[in-house]
Amino acid sequence: MKEILFKGVIAYPITPFDSNERVDITLFKNLVERLVQSGSHGIAPLGSTGVLPYLSDEEKENITETTIKQVAGRVPTLVGVSNLTTEKTIYHAQFAEKSGADSVMIIPMSYWKLTDDEIVQHYDAVASKIGIPIMAYNNPATGGVDMSPALLKRLLEIPNVTMIKESTGDVQRMHYLRRELGEEVAFYNGSNPLALAAFTAGATGWCTAAPNLIPDLNIGLYNAIQENDLENARELFYKQLDLLKFIVAKGLPRAVKAGLNILGEDGGHLRNPLKPLTEAETAELARMLLKGKN
Amino acid sequence: MKEILFKGVIAYPITPFDSNERVDITLFKNLVERLVQSGSHGIAPLGSTGVLPYLSDEEKENITETTIKQVAGRVPTLVGVSNLTTEKTIYHAQFAEKSGADSVMIIPMSYWKLTDDEIVQHYDAVASKIGIPIMAYNNPATGGVDMSPALLKRLLEIPNVTMIKESTGDVQRMHYLRRELGEEVAFYNGSNPLALAAFTAGATGWCTAAPNLIPDLNIGLYNAIQENDLENARELFYKQLDLLKFIVAKGLPRAVKAGLNILGEDGGHLRNPLKPLTEAETAELARMLLKGKN
Amino acid sequence: MKEILFKGVIAYPITPFDSNERVDITLFKNLVERLVQSGSHGIAPLGSTGVLPYLSDEEKENITETTIKQVAGRVPTLVGVSNLTTEKTIYHAQFAEKSGADSVMIIPMSYWKLTDDEIVQHYDAVASKIGIPIMAYNNPATGGVDMSPALLKRLLEIPNVTMIKESTGDVQRMHYLRRELGEEVAFYNGSNPLALAAFTAGATGWCTAAPNLIPDLNIGLYNAIQENDLENARELFYKQLDLLKFIVAKGLPRAVKAGLNILGEDGGHLRNPLKPLTEAETAELARMLLKGKN
Amino acid sequence: MKEILFKGVIAYPITPFDSNERVDITLFKNLVERLVQSGSHGIAPLGSTGVLPYLSDEEKENITETTIKQVAGRVPTLVGVSNLTTEKTIYHAQFAEKSGADSVMIIPMSYWKLTDDEIVQHYDAVASKIGIPIMAYNNPATGGVDMSPALLKRLLEIPNVTMIKESTGDVQRMHYLRRELGEEVAFYNGSNPLALAAFTAGATGWCTAAPNLIPDLNIGLYNAIQENDLENARELFYKQLDLLKFIVAKGLPRAVKAGLNILGEDGGHLRNPLKPLTEAETAELARMLLKGKN
Repeated sequence: MKEILFKGVIAYPITPFDSNERVDITLFKNLVERLVQSGSHGIAPLGSTGVLPYLSDEEKENITETTIKQVAGRVPTLVGVSNLTTEKTIYHAQFAEKSGADSVMIIPMSYWKLTDDEIVQHYDAVASKIGIPIMAYNNPATGGVDMSPALLKRLLEIPNVTMIKESTGDVQRMHYLRRELGEEVAFYNGSNPLALAAFTAGATGWCTAAPNLIPDLNIGLYNAIQENDLENARELFYKQLDLLKFIVAKGLPRAVKAGLNILGEDGGHLRNPLKPLTEAETAELARMLLKGKN
Repeated sequence: MKEILFKGVIAYPITPFDSNERVDITLFKNLVERLVQSGSHGIAPLGSTGVLPYLSDEEKENITETTIKQVAGRVPTLVGVSNLTTEKTIYHAQFAEKSGADSVMIIPMSYWKLTDDEIVQHYDAVASKIGIPIMAYNNPATGGVDMSPALLKRLLEIPNVTMIKESTGDVQRMHYLRRELGEEVAFYNGSNPLALAAFTAGATGWCTAAPNLIPDLNIGLYNAIQENDLENARELFYKQLDLLKFIVAKGLPRAVKAGLNILGEDGGHLRNPLKPLTEAETAELARMLLKGKN
Repeated sequence: MKEILFKGVIAYPITPFDSNERVDITLFKNLVERLVQSGSHGIAPLGSTGVLPYLSDEEKENITETTIKQVAGRVPTLVGVSNLTTEKTIYHAQFAEKSGADSVMIIPMSYWKLTDDEIVQHYDAVASKIGIPIMAYNNPATGGVDMSPALLKRLLEIPNVTMIKESTGDVQRMHYLRRELGEEVAFYNGSNPLALAAFTAGATGWCTAAPNLIPDLNIGLYNAIQENDLENARELFYKQLDLLKFIVAKGLPRAVKAGLNILGEDGGHLRNPLKPLTEAETAELARMLLKGKN
Repeated sequence: MKEILFKGVIAYPITPFDSNERVDITLFKNLVERLVQSGSHGIAPLGSTGVLPYLSDEEKENITETTIKQVAGRVPTLVGVSNLTTEKTIYHAQFAEKSGADSVMIIPMSYWKLTDDEIVQHYDAVASKIGIPIMAYNNPATGGVDMSPALLKRLLEIPNVTMIKESTGDVQRMHYLRRELGEEVAFYNGSNPLALAAFTAGATGWCTAAPNLIPDLNIGLYNAIQENDLENARELFYKQLDLLKFIVAKGLPRAVKAGLNILGEDGGHLRNPLKPLTEAETAELARMLLKGKN
């Protein structure tokens, strides 16, 4: 049976910028600290939420080192190292391992749609160069390719590919993973509005940016599932669903930044072409956050 | 608050034919009796499973009267009366009421895609001519139109439209219905592979042909949900998922007929152009049914 | 090489109703006469435009006989005989042949998605019972099933299936048909906004309800193609495109009826649940028809 | 009326690599020279075909300068400068202008789906920093966002956004562009299998990698259209359609590299994770190229 590194709520920090669009590393540290202290079960920098593809190599390295130093082993870390080329993916994966990351997350970014064989060789090339576990991530909306359950199965034959994250938002995919991969393989849900259905279907964890804003509701949902209390889980889920849908619809970096400001925290600036939410959108989010609080 | 007529598992009988493609009413009676005795919480003749659109008016009337007589009030009945024209829908709805049906199900069948206003006027015209409750049924795959939650909300303003059946197979739609329509409106899941997710999301009932083959698993799932026992519900769901997906993929009338034969029951014949499952498909179904039994 | 019965513009009359929703057969005769006199190269009653599925058997028979009598051999006729059951399709196909139809059109209507084998057997069963040619019609939007080019190829092996009508609206499908079926097989375009692209790709004819409103533009486009005059074809196409898109978007029976009224003709009534265009829609159509006239 | 810089066939070179995955600039020069000599009407380096997103800044700059030097004003150049961030897009657009490019092509690459306002501001920010024309490129499959015709219209209000390239592969989009933007706006087709339909609809040019392999057929099609000879255009189109579909289906960089080898040219290596075509695929391509030759 493969090692299960993460359970529960894996929190994704945003990457905040200063007014000149440079990464604000001091602010980033604070945001990571908030996530750890709120009870998140893992920290995952350089995901979509962290605008990984908009960053330079130096920025990624800085974010990686800062995260690991700040978390300081209190919870495991999962560092995003995806890149269009295999060479660069290896480079960042090795950097993460050397810096002390517990694991790396890799989505097969694909400008040109990759064949199944190309994807397997890509993961294999990276996996053979590092010793820490890999979470293979399927998200057609951002990655441009939809890895079939059959392909995910092939990836799991690579020794240190031990975890699967699914963000298609289709609960049937969760069912299929559980049936086909067996109960010993950990699969993680990356679709916020599917949080309840995915845990119900047996997901080991929930990869989410929501703990930046509503950690108690996110962790409460996981705890209710652990306690086999469906009614409480359902109630907690419906309390957070509107917000989960909102932050997905508006784009996680934009929505989390706006939400932090509403909560009295500094959310920093965005990097162009991403722009802040409109006033009307911000007001809508404020209503949800206040409601979610009470 | 609107009356809730059905809870739990609402079972859909097939319409069996003899070797000359005439409706076999004696066999139909037996099939209805099996569903009642297996513990189903409601009986719904003339659905998609019952090949409603392939039947003549006389055949529909015979099926309606036979069902009501055979069920004899042991559980409530839900008779399908959908038709392309408003005039014919009214005709069949009135016939069902007169025959003693507890409720009717109506999907807005549409060869020409209907506007929202046309759909509302269609339901309104039917509803004003009968006194029993109507279940409005949304199934883009067979009805040809996808009724938005906003439209379903409009339909619920018609006094005797009291129930919603959703077969889009999208759990988010279930969430939306629950949020928008409020907890007092009963919504029913018509997508078999979504059974667990829909009950988890708060569905009042499950409209399904599966009790023709595996009633204990279907009803067991509902009971586990009622007992707030998520772990047991999940276990029971995964025991039946393969079969649920199979019968949907192969077409319910074909699959149920084949399954009945496998179980030693008479499933009758199909009406052309529908043909029996192939030998390989039948063997696959047999493996699932035997496994499901043990 | 298979016989080519139709070339050019095959016109589809609507089925008009009186104020009591009964078929207005006198008015129907007039509408057919207008189509013949306007220069249409074929007449096709009981298509989607003619609301075939909303009619009783008697109404279909009346429409069939009336059309053939009115056209009186001036151009060939193509009678729609599609039905959900094979038995009924045979019945109507035989009726059409006996009444003097030159050919019949059959779409595999499918409430339950048919397998390829079921579709082939359905066509084969009908074809073996009649002696006139069959046009196989592919329209996933109304028929519920998308026949692959490979399946269409199988259908063409049936001796009297000699024509293919494609309404997917995908020009690549036209290319594929031409490549795979060879130049000797006639294929017809049933997607109005694709008229130019389909003729450019080599379509033999255009099945359309537009000649009820703008026959000169429709026939002019065909003539320009025949004369190998692309520039003129393009110019004529852009003159009618807005109207073609409008009548498709609003539903052909609704839009043609409204357009006839605008032109000073009697368009009759619709059968419920279909309702007339709104005032704003009618005004928009009027602007297009006046513009198209000048 | 806006200036029309390009007409006809705009050819996209691949970016070849050596066996160590470094850009092979000598080979690239040869490939560009072949395209110019074959009669292409424009040269567009750093497109999807040129694997733009897989290259470092230095590599892009090298490719840009090499192209302009090699083409030496014989035909106009169109340099791809798209980037996820606005800052980097400006950087590369300015570099292209300074190097002597005639125009730049920009697709709104979007990891996070951009709003219409963000897209307009992105183009506006870049356009204000350069003096050469911009071709706005819509390709949902690679760019991740589908720019509506209404949005394209807004972009054309920016003074130096003068050209539109559409790769949705939907001929209706071409119709819409022509109708809405007016005849004075040049629109270009980027979908190879749509080449005939797009020219028929009035496209000014065809952006394509096919001239790397079959320049005579590509240019012949354009000439036939110019000569208003639809029959010849159709014949030439069907001669190249299989190959056009093949190179799109297999991925342009992979297919062009393989095709060059088949033609006795050096196609270089690919950069991982992209891998060469399989033997069977290469054999299939060889059959088409030989056939296309004769």
